[in-house]
Amino acid sequence: MIKTIVKDIYKNKESFMNKEIELSGWIKKIRDSKNFGFIELNDGSFFKGIQIVFERNIIENYDEIAKLSIISSIIVEGKLVKSEGKGQDFEIKAKNIKVIQKADLEYPLQNKRHSFEFLREIAHLRPRTNTFSAVFRVRSLLAHAIHSFFQEKNFVYVHTPIITGSDCEGAGEMFRVTTFDLNNIPKNDKGEIDYKEDFFGKETNLTVSGQLNVETYCMAFRNVYTFGPTFRAENSNTARHAAEFWMIEPEMAFANLDLNMDVAEEMIKYVIKYLLENAKEEMEFFNKFIEKGLLDKLNNILNNEFSRVTYTEAIDILLNSKKEFDYKVEWGIDLQTEHERYLAEEYFKKPVFVIDYPKEIKAFYMKLNEDGKTVRAMDLLAPGIGEIIGGSQREDSLEILEKRMAENGLKEEDYKFYTDLRKYGSVPHSGFGLGFERMVMYVTGMSNIRDVIPFPRTPKNADY
Amino acid sequence: MIKTIVKDIYKNKESFMNKEIELSGWIKKIRDSKNFGFIELNDGSFFKGIQIVFERNIIENYDEIAKLSIISSIIVEGKLVKSEGKGQDFEIKAKNIKVIQKADLEYPLQNKRHSFEFLREIAHLRPRTNTFSAVFRVRSLLAHAIHSFFQEKNFVYVHTPIITGSDCEGAGEMFRVTTFDLNNIPKNDKGEIDYKEDFFGKETNLTVSGQLNVETYCMAFRNVYTFGPTFRAENSNTARHAAEFWMIEPEMAFANLDLNMDVAEEMIKYVIKYLLENAKEEMEFFNKFIEKGLLDKLNNILNNEFSRVTYTEAIDILLNSKKEFDYKVEWGIDLQTEHERYLAEEYFKKPVFVIDYPKEIKAFYMKLNEDGKTVRAMDLLAPGIGEIIGGSQREDSLEILEKRMAENGLKEEDYKFYTDLRKYGSVPHSGFGLGFERMVMYVTGMSNIRDVIPFPRTPKNADY
Repeated sequence: MIKTIVKDIYKNKESFMNKEIELSGWIKKIRDSKNFGFIELNDGSFFKGIQIVFERNIIENYDEIAKLSIISSIIVEGKLVKSEGKGQDFEIKAKNIKVIQKADLEYPLQNKRHSFEFLREIAHLRPRTNTFSAVFRVRSLLAHAIHSFFQEKNFVYVHTPIITGSDCEGAGEMFRVTTFDLNNIPKNDKGEIDYKEDFFGKETNLTVSGQLNVETYCMAFRNVYTFGPTFRAENSNTARHAAEFWMIEPEMAFANLDLNMDVAEEMIKYVIKYLLENAKEEMEFFNKFIEKGLLDKLNNILNNEFSRVTYTEAIDILLNSKKEFDYKVEWGIDLQTEHERYLAEEYFKKPVFVIDYPKEIKAFYMKLNEDGKTVRAMDLLAPGIGEIIGGSQREDSLEILEKRMAENGLKEEDYKFYTDLRKYGSVPHSGFGLGFERMVMYVTGMSNIRDVIPFPRTPKNADY
Repeated sequence: MIKTIVKDIYKNKESFMNKEIELSGWIKKIRDSKNFGFIELNDGSFFKGIQIVFERNIIENYDEIAKLSIISSIIVEGKLVKSEGKGQDFEIKAKNIKVIQKADLEYPLQNKRHSFEFLREIAHLRPRTNTFSAVFRVRSLLAHAIHSFFQEKNFVYVHTPIITGSDCEGAGEMFRVTTFDLNNIPKNDKGEIDYKEDFFGKETNLTVSGQLNVETYCMAFRNVYTFGPTFRAENSNTARHAAEFWMIEPEMAFANLDLNMDVAEEMIKYVIKYLLENAKEEMEFFNKFIEKGLLDKLNNILNNEFSRVTYTEAIDILLNSKKEFDYKVEWGIDLQTEHERYLAEEYFKKPVFVIDYPKEIKAFYMKLNEDGKTVRAMDLLAPGIGEIIGGSQREDSLEILEKRMAENGLKEEDYKFYTDLRKYGSVPHSGFGLGFERMVMYVTGMSNIRDVIPFPRTPKNADY
C-alpha cells in the first residue's frame, strides 16, 4: 500500500499502474448505481480529481459510502487501473473506503454554477471551486515565479516597512495606524492631538510604496526588489481597486531606462512561461471558461519583442489614429485607458513601453531629460489591460533632485535619507512597480480584483 | 571589453583571467602611493570586493582618481590578472577609470568600527557595511529558501489579509487601522464611536496571525503556507520584540502532529543547508565576527535527528535536573526560556520538539488529547535560542471545538467561517508558525531584532 496524492498519480501514472495505493481527500461528486458507484475524489494537491469505482460486493460499508454527501472526507484504498469509461484514462478500483467526516448537508457549494458575487460571500469556501482553485494556485505560482526570476538574477529581496512614519507619500489616501483609545485621544497644551503619546511617538500610516526605502538598499546591493503588501485608502468601488494589494518593486543600480525595460520585459516573459509550464491544467481552464483566447494572448507576449516609443511619438500616433476618444488627445495629457489600449491592442498589437513623459504628470524622483520638459519614465501597456508596469530612471543629480522636490512642495528634511543617496556614491539607477493582483488578473482573465485576492479589502468590506 | 559584476568574477575567475573587463561600483578603500594606487571596489553584487591597481603612467586622470574619497562611484576598465599581493588571488589592472560621482566627504560610514546602535541611526546606509550586507543578503536568501522548500512540496502560498476585521484575535495588543479624522470622530446617537462611518464600516486592526484564515485554504489545497508581515502593539523594548515582523505559517490537511514535526524539521534543515551553500562568504563572516561557533551550531542541527518528548516528560527532566531555575518547575507551567534552553542545550544538546502541553496554556484551536488535559501542541526548542517554532494539530471535531471556544469566552458568530471547516469535510490537519526574524537571528548570530530588519518598528520608533 503506497500513500500518495492525486498530483503524483497524474505526473507518474505509469509507475502507479496496477499498484495498491491509499488516497485521502474530499468527495467532489458521487453517484450510486445500486451495486456499484463512482466518486470523484479531490485531495487538494491537483486541479483535477480522480475517479473512484466502488462495488457492493467488495466494499463492506457500501451503503454508508453510497449515501455520503459531497465534500465528505474519506480515505480510499484500492488499485490504480486503466479506465474503460469516458473522461478519464485511469481510475481507482476501491477495496476499502473509510469515512473521516460525513459532511453537513447544508454545504453551500453544491455542484451547480454559482455567481462570483455569491462566492465572494463565502470567501472561506470558494477556493474549493474549480475557478478559485485555479486562480489561487496560479497566484501562488506567479508569486514564486517572481521570486525565482529575481533571485536567479542575484537581486536581494528587501522587506520594506509596512507601517511608515513618513507622512510624505500623499497623506490623503493613507490608512492611519494607531494605538490611541479613540474615545480618549491625548491632546497637548494647544489642544492638538499629541502624537508623541501614540505607539511610535508620531503619526504613522500604512505604506503606499516601498520604492524610496528600497532605493537605499539598491545603493548597497546593486539589484534589489520588494514584494509586499501596499495600501490605498481610496474610496473607489471599482473592479480594479482594492484597499490592500501586493506590489513588486525592483530597483537596479548602474541601470538606465533601457536596462529597466529589458528587465521588465524579461520578467513578464519569464513568469508567463513559468505558468504555462507549471499550471497547464489551470491555464487551459481559464482559456476555456474565463477568457477565450487567453493562451493566444499570452503566447503573443512570449513570442514578440515589446515595442518602445516615446510619449511624444505615442501622442502623434493617437492624433493620427482618427479614432474618437472620450478624452481629448494633446501633448501633456496623462494617457487614459482608452489611449493605452488603442496603442497596445490596435496599433502595436503587443506590449509597448511608452517612455519620456512630461514631467508635470510624473513623480518628482524621475530623472529629468536634457530637454528639461520630460522625464525618464516608462509605462508598459499591454493588450487587454492597459498599463501593467510603471517605472523610471531615478534622478541621480542632487542638485536637480532638490530643485524638483522644491517645485513639488516637498520638505527637504522629510527626504534626507533619500537625498543622502545622491551625496554618497550616486549612480544612475532605475526601477519599476508591478501590481501583483493586476498581473494575476491579466494571466487568468479574471476581471474583478476581488476574485484574485483570498480575502479582499474594499470600502465597507473587511470580512474574515 | 566584457561588462560584468564582481560576483561573476569570483564564481568564474578562470574564464575572465587575462580578459579585458568593465566593472562599475563604489570605492570601499583607496590608497595612493604616488605613482600607483589600490582601490577596493565593491559593486554590490557580492560580499567581497575586488582589488583595482591603477598606475600613473597608464591612467590619464590619475590625480583625480587618487584623490577620490570612499563611496565615490566609478567605472573601471582593465584586465583581470593574477595578484602577487597578499589577501587576494586576482586583481584588476586598470586601463581607464571614469568617475560617476565624487562622494561628499561627510560620509558617516568611514572605515572604522561603528557600533550597531550608531548604525541603527543611519539605517539607510548601514547595508553598505560588511555586517549588514551579510545580514540582509542572508535574510533575502532565507526568504527564498523558505518559498522554495514549500513550493517544491506543492504547498500553495496564500496572502492572508493584513488588515483584519475580526476583533477576536486578542484585541489588546493590536494596531488600529482607520481613516477617521482623529480630530473629528463620528459618533452615533448613543455617543459611541460610529465605526459604520470608518473606511471598512467596522473596527479594523493589523493582523497578528494568518493561521485561521489560511486554514480555510488548507481545506481546498491540502498544503498551504503564508509568508507575510504580522504586528504586535506590545510596548516592550527588548532585543527580541518588534512591532512589525514577518511570519511563515504552513498548514497541512490529512496531517497529524508527527507529520507536522517531520515537515518542520525538514524545513529547518533545508533552509540551513541552502544558506551554507548559497551564502558561504557571509556565513563564514558571521562565524568569525558575530557568533563564534555558529557553523558548528548549524552543522549540529543538520547532522542530528531532532528529539521529541512530551511536555510531561520534559517537566520530569527539568525536575530531575537538580538545576536552580528562577521560575519554579511544576506540571502546568508555561516553559520559560531558561527551561527551554536547558532542555535543548544541556539535556538533548540538539533541537527538541516538546509536545502535548496542558490545554490551559495553549490556544483554543489545538486538538484535545484523549486524556482531556493536554492538547496536540508542539514547540521546537533549539540550542542557543529556545523556542523557534510553535504549532499544533488543530481541533477537527466541531463539537469539541465549540466547547473549547465557549470555555475561552469566544463568540460563535465571530468564528463561523472557522467552524464551517469542521462541518464541511473536516479532516485532521496541522500547522506551525515560524517567526522569520527569529530565524534570521538564529542563522546569523545577530542578537538584536533591530539589526535583522531593514527599517525596524519598535515603541517610539518608525523612522524612514
